[in-house]
Amino acid sequence: MMRTAIILAAGQGTRMKSAMPKVMHRLAGRPMVNHLIASCAGVFDRVVVVVGPGMPELERAVAPHATVVQAERLGTGHAARMAAPQLEGFSGDVAVLYGDNPLITAATLERLVAARAGADLTLLAMRPADPARYGRLVQAADGAVERIVEWADASEAERAIGLCNAGVVCGAWADLSRWLAALKNDNRQGEFYLTDVVGAAHAEGRRTEAVEAPEAELRGINTRVELAQAEAEVQARLREAAMLGGATLVQPGSVTLSWDTRLGQDVVVEPQVVFSPGVTVEDGVAIRAFSHLEQCVVRRGAIIGPYARLRPGTEVGEGAHVGNFVELKAAHLGAGAKANHLSYLGDATIGAGANIGAGTITCNYDGVNKHRTEIGAGAFIGSDTALVAPVRVGARAITAAGSVVTEEVPDDAMAIARGRQVNKPGRGVKGKS
Amino acid sequence: MMRTAIILAAGQGTRMKSAMPKVMHRLAGRPMVNHLIASCAGVFDRVVVVVGPGMPELERAVAPHATVVQAERLGTGHAARMAAPQLEGFSGDVAVLYGDNPLITAATLERLVAARAGADLTLLAMRPADPARYGRLVQAADGAVERIVEWADASEAERAIGLCNAGVVCGAWADLSRWLAALKNDNRQGEFYLTDVVGAAHAEGRRTEAVEAPEAELRGINTRVELAQAEAEVQARLREAAMLGGATLVQPGSVTLSWDTRLGQDVVVEPQVVFSPGVTVEDGVAIRAFSHLEQCVVRRGAIIGPYARLRPGTEVGEGAHVGNFVELKAAHLGAGAKANHLSYLGDATIGAGANIGAGTITCNYDGVNKHRTEIGAGAFIGSDTALVAPVRVGARAITAAGSVVTEEVPDDAMAIARGRQVNKPGRGVKGKS
Amino acid sequence: MMRTAIILAAGQGTRMKSAMPKVMHRLAGRPMVNHLIASCAGVFDRVVVVVGPGMPELERAVAPHATVVQAERLGTGHAARMAAPQLEGFSGDVAVLYGDNPLITAATLERLVAARAGADLTLLAMRPADPARYGRLVQAADGAVERIVEWADASEAERAIGLCNAGVVCGAWADLSRWLAALKNDNRQGEFYLTDVVGAAHAEGRRTEAVEAPEAELRGINTRVELAQAEAEVQARLREAAMLGGATLVQPGSVTLSWDTRLGQDVVVEPQVVFSPGVTVEDGVAIRAFSHLEQCVVRRGAIIGPYARLRPGTEVGEGAHVGNFVELKAAHLGAGAKANHLSYLGDATIGAGANIGAGTITCNYDGVNKHRTEIGAGAFIGSDTALVAPVRVGARAITAAGSVVTEEVPDDAMAIARGRQVNKPGRGVKGKS
Repeated sequence: MMRTAIILAAGQGTRMKSAMPKVMHRLAGRPMVNHLIASCAGVFDRVVVVVGPGMPELERAVAPHATVVQAERLGTGHAARMAAPQLEGFSGDVAVLYGDNPLITAATLERLVAARAGADLTLLAMRPADPARYGRLVQAADGAVERIVEWADASEAERAIGLCNAGVVCGAWADLSRWLAALKNDNRQGEFYLTDVVGAAHAEGRRTEAVEAPEAELRGINTRVELAQAEAEVQARLREAAMLGGATLVQPGSVTLSWDTRLGQDVVVEPQVVFSPGVTVEDGVAIRAFSHLEQCVVRRGAIIGPYARLRPGTEVGEGAHVGNFVELKAAHLGAGAKANHLSYLGDATIGAGANIGAGTITCNYDGVNKHRTEIGAGAFIGSDTALVAPVRVGARAITAAGSVVTEEVPDDAMAIARGRQVNKPGRGVKGKS
Repeated sequence: MMRTAIILAAGQGTRMKSAMPKVMHRLAGRPMVNHLIASCAGVFDRVVVVVGPGMPELERAVAPHATVVQAERLGTGHAARMAAPQLEGFSGDVAVLYGDNPLITAATLERLVAARAGADLTLLAMRPADPARYGRLVQAADGAVERIVEWADASEAERAIGLCNAGVVCGAWADLSRWLAALKNDNRQGEFYLTDVVGAAHAEGRRTEAVEAPEAELRGINTRVELAQAEAEVQARLREAAMLGGATLVQPGSVTLSWDTRLGQDVVVEPQVVFSPGVTVEDGVAIRAFSHLEQCVVRRGAIIGPYARLRPGTEVGEGAHVGNFVELKAAHLGAGAKANHLSYLGDATIGAGANIGAGTITCNYDGVNKHRTEIGAGAFIGSDTALVAPVRVGARAITAAGSVVTEEVPDDAMAIARGRQVNKPGRGVKGKS
Repeated sequence: MMRTAIILAAGQGTRMKSAMPKVMHRLAGRPMVNHLIASCAGVFDRVVVVVGPGMPELERAVAPHATVVQAERLGTGHAARMAAPQLEGFSGDVAVLYGDNPLITAATLERLVAARAGADLTLLAMRPADPARYGRLVQAADGAVERIVEWADASEAERAIGLCNAGVVCGAWADLSRWLAALKNDNRQGEFYLTDVVGAAHAEGRRTEAVEAPEAELRGINTRVELAQAEAEVQARLREAAMLGGATLVQPGSVTLSWDTRLGQDVVVEPQVVFSPGVTVEDGVAIRAFSHLEQCVVRRGAIIGPYARLRPGTEVGEGAHVGNFVELKAAHLGAGAKANHLSYLGDATIGAGANIGAGTITCNYDGVNKHRTEIGAGAFIGSDTALVAPVRVGARAITAAGSVVTEEVPDDAMAIARGRQVNKPGRGVKGKS
C-alpha cells in the first residue's frame, strides 16, 4: 500500500521569539523538519509539507518534497486539510505529523502504520513523566481508544490516566479526508482540531488504536529551551551510535556531532570538539581537543589538533598532521605532510611529506579574487613564510624563514626574501620596535 | 516601611582552603555576596555587610553599601549585633542574611518580608532532599514556629520533620535588636546563635512564621564543590533566561554566561563559548564555537569566531566578521569589516568595510607605552602585515602582503615594505631556513 | 601475610571494535588496567597480569609487573589458572581481579582482603540499579554465600535477590589453586568459570562471604559507551579531590583532568580546559578557558590562557603570562615574562621579565634538526619577529617589529631586519598584495 506523510510546519512559533519559522531551527546541524523527513524516508512513499505564507527558505529546505501553504492559522485540522489537493484520488494511508516533533524515529513510524492492520485509525501515545496538560486517551476494555479528553475538560479520574495523546494520527486517506472535511471549529479557540478525527471515527463505529512510544521521541519544541533539550536528545543518539561503532569520545557530552558525521574505527575524539555537517573521518585518526571540522575528509591515521580548524573543501591526507591554531580552507594536505603551528592554508595544494613551518600564511585573497598556492611534495616551508598566491613552491624546495614568497620557487631550489639584519647598540629607537 | 538587610560575611571559610574571604569567590563573574546584594535591591532600602577584620577587597566589592567589622568570631548572633551601631534609632524591619547563601531570589525575599504582616518574626525554611543535620522547625497546630531543634538534640520524631531551618530571619528592628542583645552563648560551641531569636520571640508570646523556599535557593556554600554546584545553578538560570529571551544556545551546558551578559534575539551561540562580564550582543549575531568575549559590544548581524577572542574595550560593527585565532583588544571594527584569521588587533580603529588579512599584527607596545593604529574605511591590509603603531593606513589604501608598515599610508595608496625574493638552486643553506 | 593480585586482561574486547586490547583503552590519560594496578598498590605485594597472545604494548604498559599469556580463550577460571606457574609455592592470599573493572578503589580491595579473617573465600558484590542479567548471591541465614545463580538459571524468587556477583574473589592460594584446578567446563559455553570456585568452597564446607561495594566501582567496561561512563566516574573523583584540595573549577564538568594532575591552592581553572598527563600547577595560578596543558610545570601566580597550549618540557615561571594562541614546547619562560599573543616558542629559554611580542615565532626546525633559541632577561622581542634558531638575543636587547633575526643580538643592542617601506599611489598592483 502507498503511504503519504503530511507534515504540519506552518507555525511561526511565537514562543521561539525568532524571525525564522519554527521548524527551520536546527538540530545537529540541519533544520528540525529535515530530521522528521529523514525518519519518514523508509516508511512513507511521499511527504507533503504544510508551510505558512512567506516561508521560501522552508520550502527550499524541504525540497524536493511538495509543499502547500496554509494561508490562515485555523488549527491543526485545517492545516492537514490543506494537503488535500495534493492527494486527489490517493487510495493509500496518510499519517499527519508535526514538524516541531522531530525526534520520532523511523521505527516508531513503522509501528504506527503497521498498527493499521488492526484498526481504522492509529495514533501515537506516550506516558509523560509530567502529564500536565496533555489530552488523555480514554480506552475501552479491549484497548480501543474511544475519545481524547482535553486536560481542561477532564474529570479527576480522567486526569489520572497516564496515557496521553501525542497528536499524530494515521488512517486511510479515504476515511481521513472525510473526517477532516467534517471537522467543526465550535470550540473555545475557534479552531479545527486534528484530534477530533478520533471522535469522528468512533461516531462511525470505527476502531482507533494507540501506539505507545517514549516521551523523548514525542515531545514537541515550542521554546529555545525545548530546542536545546531536543538537541541534547539528538546528540545523545549520535554519540552513542558513534561510540558503539568503534570511535572513542573521551567526554561524549562535550563533543558536538552533526547528523551526518562519519567516524571510523579507533578514531579518538578528545574533549571539546565540534563537527559541523559534512565530515568524514577515517579509521585510526586522532582528533585532539578544541578542534572544529566542517565539510572535510580526514584520511586514516591523521592527527588533527588541538585547536585545528578544518573548513569546507579540506582533505587531510593519510598520516598527515594539523596542529594548533592552524586553519585549512579548501586545502589538500598530502599524505604525511605536517602543518603544526599557527598557520593559515587557504586554497592550497600541499604535496606528500611537505613541512609547513609555524606562522605560514597563504595570502590567497587580493581583495577581489582568491588565488591558489601549490606546494610540492617534500617541500620545506620555513617558519613565518608568507606565500603570495598565485604561487608555486616546487617539490623538495625550501623557503627561508621569514620570507615573503611572491614568485615561483623551482623544484629543489631555496627561496629567500627578507631584510638583512643590522644590530645597533643602546637599544636603538624604542618608539618603533 | 523602611527595610534593612544585614548580610553576614565575616567568615574566612576554612573549608574553601583559600586566601580569599569566602564570599569573594565568584559566581557567574562576580563575588557571591554581590549576587545576594542584587537580590536585596528591590526589597530592602539599605544593606549593611558584616565583614571580618582585614578584608579590604570585600569592603570594596560591596561598596557603596556600609560595612561593619566583626573582630571576633563569636557566632552568627554576635555578627548580626555588629550592625547595631548602623541601625541606631531605626524603626523599620531588618532581615539577617548570609553572604554564603547567595542564590536566594528577590521573589523569596519579598515573601519573607511580606509575611511579616502576619507574624512578629519570619524565617526562611526548606525541605532539603537530604535533611541531614539541619535544624528542624517545630510548628504549632496553626503553623506558627515554636522552636528550632538542632539535629544533635532532636528526638527521632523531630528528626522526621521535613521542614528545616535556613537561618534567615526578619523582624522589626525594635524587637530583633532586643532579642539579639539578650542572646546567650551557654552552648557547646560557646557561640551566640542568631537562630535563638526564635526562642526569644516565643518566650515573649510573639508569633514566628516560616516562609518556605526551594532548597536550590537556600543551600549554603562551604567548599569549592558547593561553589561549583552554586555556579551550575546560577548558570542554569542565566541560560534559561537567555533562551526564553530569544537566543539559541546550541548546547547550553557548554556555554558560560556572566551575570550581566545581554544577548539579543536570534543570536545563535555555538557550543563552548565563554562570556566574561560586560558583554552586549545585538540581534542576529552568530557566536561560533570556542569564542571568548569580555567587556565588549557586538553589533547586529556580526559573525564572531570560531576561536575569536574579544577583549575589553572592543566593539564589533554591524555585519562585521571576526574569525579564528583573532584577538581584538580595545579595537573598533567598523561595519562590514573583516578580520578572519590569526590576527592581533590591539588599540586599533578599523574603518567600515576594511579587510584585514591573515596574520596581521598591530605592534602596539614599545615596551613602555601602547600606541594606536588607525585603518581607514575600505582599506585592504595584506596578509602577514605588521603595523607598527602609532601608524595610520588611509581609506581604501592597500598594504602589500608581508609588509612591515612603519609610516603613514595615504588614502588610496599602496605600501610595500618587504625584502626581495632570491631563488638559489640546491636547497640553499639548510641550517638557516 | 603476603598477597598477590591476579588481573585478568587477556580479552580483546570485541564489542569495543578496536585494534587495541580492551584494557589498554585509556581513562584520565592512562590505560584502564593501570588504574586497577594503582588501586592494588597498597593492598597487594605483587601483581600478575594475564594477557592475551600478541599484546606487547599491554605487557609494556603493566611493566614491571609480571605477565603471563593466556593463549586460548577458555574462560575466566582458565585465565586465572595461567598465573599458577608464577605462584609456585606461594603461601599467601590471592585475589582475582578484572582489567576491565578498573574503578575499584584501594579501600574496597582492603575490605575484600580484610574479610578473609572471617571466611575462606571472599568476593565482591553489589546492588546494581538494574540487576539485569548479573548472577545472584544466594546466602544462608548467617550471611554466608552458598552459591551464585546465573540469571538464566535463576528462579523468580532468586531473580528477586538484589545482591549480585561482581566476579572478584579472594582466598588462600593453597585453596584457590586447588579449586581452580578442579574447575569443569561442562556448561553451555564450554568455558571454565572463575565463579565456580564458590561452589567448590561450599562443597568442602568452607565459608564464603560477600563484601559489598558501590556499583559505580564494580561496573565493567565492554563498549566505548561504558568506557565513557567510566571516564565520567574517574573525572568526577578527580575533580572533587581537586576542589576539596583548594582549586576552583568554575565548571568542573568541562574540565578534563589526568590521573596525575596536581593543582595548588587558589588555582582557578576556567571552563573548557584540558590537562593531559604530567602537569603540576602551583598555588594561585589562573588557568583561563580553552587552555591545554601537557607535561609541564606552572609556577605560582602565573596566568595561562585563554587558548594557551603548554606542551611537554615547558616550565612557566612565577608570575609569568602566557596568552591566547600561544604554544610553548620545551620552553622555559622566566619569572614575570610575558608571551601574550599568537606565538610559537619551541626549544627556547626566555629570561625573567622578557616581553615576547605578538606573532613571535621561533624557527626551531630546519627540516633535520631542532635548534634552541635563547632570550635574555628583560629582552623585548618586537611583534612579528622570527627568531631563526640557533640564535641568542641578549639581556635587555630589543628586536624591531617584523624582523627576521638570524644572528646573535648582543646584550642591550637593538636588531632590525626588515624591508624598507615604499608608498605607491593608486593602490599599486592589486594582484600581488
